[in-house]
Amino acid sequence: MRISPTRCIIPVGIMKIYFAGSIRGGRDDVALYRRIIALLSDHGEVLTEHVGSEGLTPTGEDALSDEEIYARDMAWLAQADVVIAEVTTPSHGVGYEIAQAEAMNKPLLCIYRLGVGRRPSAMLAGNPATRCEDYESIEQLKSILARFLRAIP
Amino acid sequence: MRISPTRCIIPVGIMKIYFAGSIRGGRDDVALYRRIIALLSDHGEVLTEHVGSEGLTPTGEDALSDEEIYARDMAWLAQADVVIAEVTTPSHGVGYEIAQAEAMNKPLLCIYRLGVGRRPSAMLAGNPATRCEDYESIEQLKSILARFLRAIP
Repeated sequence: MRISPTRCIIPVGIMKIYFAGSIRGGRDDVALYRRIIALLSDHGEVLTEHVGSEGLTPTGEDALSDEEIYARDMAWLAQADVVIAEVTTPSHGVGYEIAQAEAMNKPLLCIYRLGVGRRPSAMLAGNPATRCEDYESIEQLKSILARFLRAIP
Repeated sequence: MRISPTRCIIPVGIMKIYFAGSIRGGRDDVALYRRIIALLSDHGEVLTEHVGSEGLTPTGEDALSDEEIYARDMAWLAQADVVIAEVTTPSHGVGYEIAQAEAMNKPLLCIYRLGVGRRPSAMLAGNPATRCEDYESIEQLKSILARFLRAIP
């Protein structure tokens, strides 16, 4: 699977959403990511739709080098109007993307699924620049996302 | 356990080392972190010695709020002369700290233990600003750290 930024020529006025979820950190939540991407697609264009693909395993994308993935993802992040990060499964990449999104002053929401016996990192939950919301069900998450995204100018 | 930045009044000329390892992402590697901190202590003062503490569980530090931990760790990061991040166990916090260290132009080395059946995130391995080195043994890591730290002006 080769995914390049060129597929993301999006009409003006459509919100561009960068969704961040774990890939090499572990794919336990891939089905959840797919459902979240479907919810986000009601609000705009999800640049990182491949994060919800069942075909994408923890070994990552095989058609691109790490350098190409990094350059593509940073280009998408720069293009994005908003960043949504699912932070239940630990991931260096998602933590890195959150800090970059903060540096770029992107509207950013971290979402965390309750009931997994962990707590989100203090680097996210204690960061005054980062909004974190817990959720227990997809229905609840749907409302959280709608409220957050509709408030973006 | 309460750990505050005030314990880190370090004599001028001693290298200040920020060691980053997983806490809430999982403590599988805590014994390894302790050995790495011992190696780093031969080169300077490790600001984040608590990362190698067996008493620190995935629930994190209980005497500080998330906001206090975030503020303390960012203050330590700003003080540090160099950042060493162990990136075998996935962690949002470590990924976040790596991006912040990059933004602060700190000398930064990511170290990754081979043989765990994962690969480091493309956000680290594919990032031209981040140096990543694999290792298989503590002896090998000792040489990698010495080579890296001795080259810092």
